[in-house]
Amino acid sequence: MTFFEKLEKAQKDKNSLVCVGLDTDIEKIPKHLLTEKDPIFSFNKAIIDATKDFASTYKPNIPFYAAQGNEGLDSLKRTVEYLHTLDIPVIVDAKRNDIGNTAELYARELFGNFGFDAMTVNPYMGEDSVRPFLAHADKGIFILTKTSNPGSKDFQDLIFEGKPLYQHVVEKSLSWDVNGNAGFVVGATAPEQLLEVRTLAPKSTFLIPGIGAQGGDIQATMKNGLREDGLGLIINSSRGIIYASSGEDFTEKAKEETLKLRDEINRYRNV
Amino acid sequence: MTFFEKLEKAQKDKNSLVCVGLDTDIEKIPKHLLTEKDPIFSFNKAIIDATKDFASTYKPNIPFYAAQGNEGLDSLKRTVEYLHTLDIPVIVDAKRNDIGNTAELYARELFGNFGFDAMTVNPYMGEDSVRPFLAHADKGIFILTKTSNPGSKDFQDLIFEGKPLYQHVVEKSLSWDVNGNAGFVVGATAPEQLLEVRTLAPKSTFLIPGIGAQGGDIQATMKNGLREDGLGLIINSSRGIIYASSGEDFTEKAKEETLKLRDEINRYRNV
Repeated sequence: MTFFEKLEKAQKDKNSLVCVGLDTDIEKIPKHLLTEKDPIFSFNKAIIDATKDFASTYKPNIPFYAAQGNEGLDSLKRTVEYLHTLDIPVIVDAKRNDIGNTAELYARELFGNFGFDAMTVNPYMGEDSVRPFLAHADKGIFILTKTSNPGSKDFQDLIFEGKPLYQHVVEKSLSWDVNGNAGFVVGATAPEQLLEVRTLAPKSTFLIPGIGAQGGDIQATMKNGLREDGLGLIINSSRGIIYASSGEDFTEKAKEETLKLRDEINRYRNV
Repeated sequence: MTFFEKLEKAQKDKNSLVCVGLDTDIEKIPKHLLTEKDPIFSFNKAIIDATKDFASTYKPNIPFYAAQGNEGLDSLKRTVEYLHTLDIPVIVDAKRNDIGNTAELYARELFGNFGFDAMTVNPYMGEDSVRPFLAHADKGIFILTKTSNPGSKDFQDLIFEGKPLYQHVVEKSLSWDVNGNAGFVVGATAPEQLLEVRTLAPKSTFLIPGIGAQGGDIQATMKNGLREDGLGLIINSSRGIIYASSGEDFTEKAKEETLKLRDEINRYRNV
């Protein structure tokens, strides 16, 4: 199965568009886990076990692991392997970008070594920096468009020939998407731009960061972003779920927050 | 010393603007090295020993190492450590990009764990994705502007208020550069754009890929890119040097090519 087939199966089976962002920081996990052999993996596994019935996918953010050196990367690899034993597709937030054969080496790192099912890609370098990733037809390639941070206005909103840069990114990316495996990253903090991206890409799946800590609005996101079939969105929450509590009850709180987010999202779907 | 101080000292001491790109691929190194304990490090060390009197800096491209997993990353770490025993500053080509605390984690990976002196950064996400890197005042931060690949025309050349995107990137980046440690990546394949970037950033240092295999012209690069003081450029060559021969004579050939490039560059400097 391709990433998008796995994703939609999981979204339907669990009736959930929620993605749990595994931005796991050794300094923020509950202190009682620090005596474990691999505290980062132990934390991730506990979070996954608590939330897996209500989350359709997980998104580790690779710098959180890379900052811990090879040991952190090993914890990440174990996390991906564990998710795969549960048949859960995994997206890596890596925002990689390079051209041709060098892009292919990043694909080898992330798809080959780690086994991720999807990744995020930065489009600034253009066609020959995006196509090598899209060539992995069974993987999901989420291209940054209008991101959720304040600085997204600096370049992404600049208007060229009547359209902001992020819309050019969507249009050109779709023209390169011969395998139908391009998705887009669109911040929940920009609901009007989300509507514009949905208009340009009615059939695509969007990865939506910015819910929760960053202040994105769920109702506006659903209204403007949902695909006609009630899918087409991956709504990510990281800190709001994984750090809902820093005590012994962190798994219960994470479960509660995931369920709450799933149900709040589903209020705006016909499900 | 800051990166730029180290760099200029090395450029003056060796009378060389050459940077050797360590795009080391296990499949392309001479076969007789494969019996070594760490073939990638052995290759890099041999290349460094052969070229160090004529190259002022080295630029490993991190995906070449990451594609080999933790073992590859260990070879990279050894390479950086070896270059530091020789007092040579090292730039990592990583094209990283993320915001705020997440960007800081990439800085911890590359500056903290590996000890790199400078890195490349993709500006697509704007101010809060560039400033966290610039905050490392002793490090060099090379921001992508007009890159050397064909796809650079797709977005970087789009015109907003009479100026292409890459020029907006230069202007905004300079306005964020409170520590004076921003540099720019400008492809040798775009000499006219290089002149425009030099006009906007007369005091900055540019990292120039695209010489050699990618067809960049040295004369035009020097004419349009050289800073008034005869410095301000880091001219990278990767494959043209490190794979000049695939036989037992690979170090001699690498040395020859480095010396040749240094001297060709110096013909267009007043040195």
